[in-house]
Amino acid sequence: MSSFPSSTLQPILCAGQWRAATDATRGFRAADPTTAESIGPEFPYSGAADVEAMLDAATQAASVLAACEPARIAAFLDAYAAALDAARDTLVASAHAETALPAAPRLAEVELPRTSDQLRQAARAVRDYSWTQPVIDTRSGLRAHFAPLHKPVLVFGPNNFPFAFNAAAGSDFASAIAARNPVIAAAHPAHPGTSRLLAELAHQAVLACGLPAATLQLFYALDPALGLRLAGDRRLGAIGFTGSRQAGMALKAAADQAGVPIHAEMSSVNPVFLLAGALRERGAGLAQEFFASCTLGSGQFCTSPGLVMVPADAAGDAFVSAAAARFDGAAAMLLLAAGVERHLTAAVAALRSAGARLIAGRAQAEAPGWRYAPSLLEVDAAQFLAQPAALQQEAFGPVALLVRYHDTEQAVAIGHACEGSLTGSLFSAADGSDDADCARVAAALRPRVGRLCNDKWPTGVAVSAAMQHGGPYPSTSHAGFSAVGMPGAIRRFAQWQCHDNVREDRLPSELRDANPAALQRLVDGRWTDRSL
Amino acid sequence: MSSFPSSTLQPILCAGQWRAATDATRGFRAADPTTAESIGPEFPYSGAADVEAMLDAATQAASVLAACEPARIAAFLDAYAAALDAARDTLVASAHAETALPAAPRLAEVELPRTSDQLRQAARAVRDYSWTQPVIDTRSGLRAHFAPLHKPVLVFGPNNFPFAFNAAAGSDFASAIAARNPVIAAAHPAHPGTSRLLAELAHQAVLACGLPAATLQLFYALDPALGLRLAGDRRLGAIGFTGSRQAGMALKAAADQAGVPIHAEMSSVNPVFLLAGALRERGAGLAQEFFASCTLGSGQFCTSPGLVMVPADAAGDAFVSAAAARFDGAAAMLLLAAGVERHLTAAVAALRSAGARLIAGRAQAEAPGWRYAPSLLEVDAAQFLAQPAALQQEAFGPVALLVRYHDTEQAVAIGHACEGSLTGSLFSAADGSDDADCARVAAALRPRVGRLCNDKWPTGVAVSAAMQHGGPYPSTSHAGFSAVGMPGAIRRFAQWQCHDNVREDRLPSELRDANPAALQRLVDGRWTDRSL
Repeated sequence: MSSFPSSTLQPILCAGQWRAATDATRGFRAADPTTAESIGPEFPYSGAADVEAMLDAATQAASVLAACEPARIAAFLDAYAAALDAARDTLVASAHAETALPAAPRLAEVELPRTSDQLRQAARAVRDYSWTQPVIDTRSGLRAHFAPLHKPVLVFGPNNFPFAFNAAAGSDFASAIAARNPVIAAAHPAHPGTSRLLAELAHQAVLACGLPAATLQLFYALDPALGLRLAGDRRLGAIGFTGSRQAGMALKAAADQAGVPIHAEMSSVNPVFLLAGALRERGAGLAQEFFASCTLGSGQFCTSPGLVMVPADAAGDAFVSAAAARFDGAAAMLLLAAGVERHLTAAVAALRSAGARLIAGRAQAEAPGWRYAPSLLEVDAAQFLAQPAALQQEAFGPVALLVRYHDTEQAVAIGHACEGSLTGSLFSAADGSDDADCARVAAALRPRVGRLCNDKWPTGVAVSAAMQHGGPYPSTSHAGFSAVGMPGAIRRFAQWQCHDNVREDRLPSELRDANPAALQRLVDGRWTDRSL
Repeated sequence: MSSFPSSTLQPILCAGQWRAATDATRGFRAADPTTAESIGPEFPYSGAADVEAMLDAATQAASVLAACEPARIAAFLDAYAAALDAARDTLVASAHAETALPAAPRLAEVELPRTSDQLRQAARAVRDYSWTQPVIDTRSGLRAHFAPLHKPVLVFGPNNFPFAFNAAAGSDFASAIAARNPVIAAAHPAHPGTSRLLAELAHQAVLACGLPAATLQLFYALDPALGLRLAGDRRLGAIGFTGSRQAGMALKAAADQAGVPIHAEMSSVNPVFLLAGALRERGAGLAQEFFASCTLGSGQFCTSPGLVMVPADAAGDAFVSAAAARFDGAAAMLLLAAGVERHLTAAVAALRSAGARLIAGRAQAEAPGWRYAPSLLEVDAAQFLAQPAALQQEAFGPVALLVRYHDTEQAVAIGHACEGSLTGSLFSAADGSDDADCARVAAALRPRVGRLCNDKWPTGVAVSAAMQHGGPYPSTSHAGFSAVGMPGAIRRFAQWQCHDNVREDRLPSELRDANPAALQRLVDGRWTDRSL
């Protein structure tokens, strides 16, 4: 650390070096969510000159990285994963201080291992070339695969995952690097110290593995106008964004205008349908599971169940009572940042002004730090159907809206009124008595959600090739891609390239006749691991 | 035909029926490009009420179609293909009259067979489920695949392929239908009669195969403001567009703002690099091939070679002389429409005002109809590099700009200055003497083009799984997709859906344990056709 330039502001990672910001516009500090007091050193809001320097350096690095041996990329991803695991205690302490997320199990036993595992899965996808999806057509002489963008990827990390979606360590980072693109990481300002620690480890691994020094660059914050200018810069190959709908929409507009593909994951209410038979069979258990899922991580998950359809019958009433008791019994929960509390308060007020009744939750008392008492709102299905947009605003935090429906017709109508979400869930009776209703509701819900769960709450996103952590607009900007799961997530940051009559010795290795590593390739319509 | 409502305007295909436009804003007729005189009956510019009726009907049809048995979709695609082949003479006569493209070989022996073959390839991708790319992860209980959008796809066809890219028969149509989405077809106003004939055959096959009657709807023209309103309608699942950059950009802006994914293919100059050794070996032959490729279809192809880099040496001079002689020797060629001639004239004037010299081409004499004498322009590499944007405007027609480069450094610099194109081509010596230069130029060019050809001109686009008929912005809106080639092209109009813990009997058939049809599926990281 002694090599960092001295400055009152923390250094940025720019053009291959940790160095002082040259034109910071202001400074900021992280905060302790338990007290709302500033903690740690001061970080810069970066200015236009440093952003320009990053774009220049990343553009240079992009060509080098695209030509890099995949084995070297994989080695970097594995080395970085190992470094994360080795630095666990330091990383967890920093993230816990900046986010108030529990050190254990959440940060140390769930999120950090998930993050290093994700890097290792990306490394495997690099080694087996699965993300490139090699296709050979021997009759036409055409050979195609996914290839690097040859341009940098700008990644905006969210506030709620200091590791697993961090712009310098998470799924977008791993995906962009696996496709051999440099990353310009926009750390989330809620955890700048953790982002810096991660970027230090990544940068050390970059240098140790012989990748271009500007493979990863990092800034901590930008004024909004500069952020939009950056998002609309044609030197970018793509953008990955995870965050609020408001910020995502603004960045998407800037990127769209410049023709920069943006993969934006922006808010989701994650509708859950509880069918009558399921509640009769196991209503009490479901109430407990619902409370646990909705308040996990203080409800600060993109997949938190925020909209729950409950029958307006006796079993439904019992479910609501049991759930309300759990919410009423819970103390206020820590939130990540001042903005989360502000937006949550506003969202609950908006839902109430749209007709939802607050049915559970302690009074939101003054308390040190940022907290919110878990709360339940309720509305009748007819009212929901009268203003479905107003009643589908995301309340990011430990809050859900219950919609009481009177028959399957109404449940189906609600399904049709659902906006695009990352997930949707259906709970039905184990004895099959709900099956006909379930099929009708599923038909309405299925096209509106990326991942459809059966008898399972939506929180918890496995890193799997069969995952869809994405969904129809406005939950994301394109329902054809997933932000999580290798190798699919990597293809968001790749271009499809065809080689037409290209001489054998000029082809990328995975498209040549010989297939010594037994890669899986689509040859004349059949997947095979043989040589031609 | 006697069942059509009588009207002075030709009927539209709306809500499952051929019927009179209810609020046409004006009428128009096709034109004979050889005389510029109007031919055939009058067609409507559709108004907002008919567009609304189409959106309503398509939205209804989308749910039915998404739930349809894939076998029925495949049967439709095959039936329509057979109907196209059977109606060949009628279709060719109509297209020839409206476009002046040669009846044979072009329309009858190349484009129509290609179009029916494309429909059959789409049918195969439906039957073998290859477009759905089934992925099963047994450990996590997740199963995923590409699925219908459950919303209509709006397709805009271009002027230059009355069959193969027709909004009611071409690649976008076949792709959208294969993914079980209804199509609202925006026929190109340059060939309304041909589009109507195609839509009649499609509609008959739709009814015969028991698909929803509104599976295909067709209008012939819209006023621009209404077109933009339609492109920005959130009831659309996606848009496919092939056409000019100006129209594509306007539609993309409207679609982007509404969150409607648009796959736009918009102009391409298709850079070609002739290396010194190739010209020494076979310069005369290359000059002849270049002329043939550049003037094929009067140069009205998205993949026409419009920018050719030629060494400033003796072999290069000889190539230029030989090519110029061919261009000088050719009579004016028929163009598709008045707008093509107008844009081409303007583009050549713009290239000349940016410093390009006209070195070949007969005087553009007054002649009946729309014609252009094949023309060559030339510019020095230094001048090209001084204003690369101005000198990369697409001149859609039998025109190319030759750039004379003095050394490999310059060729590489030109490669870096190339905008995104559908194709790029490299010609090098068979004896390997150019190989080092070729590698350097290829490294610069490769990321800027979708399909890289070796020793081959870019015109001619095979319908293959290994095709990339797409490329970096601004040639298309997203370099990760191809507009041609099954099954990839189908995935443009699909969403990625995950089934999490979904009960076996509720899963789509291709994601169940049993795999009786031996579909290829990615199971726990390996492609296999076995059952679980």
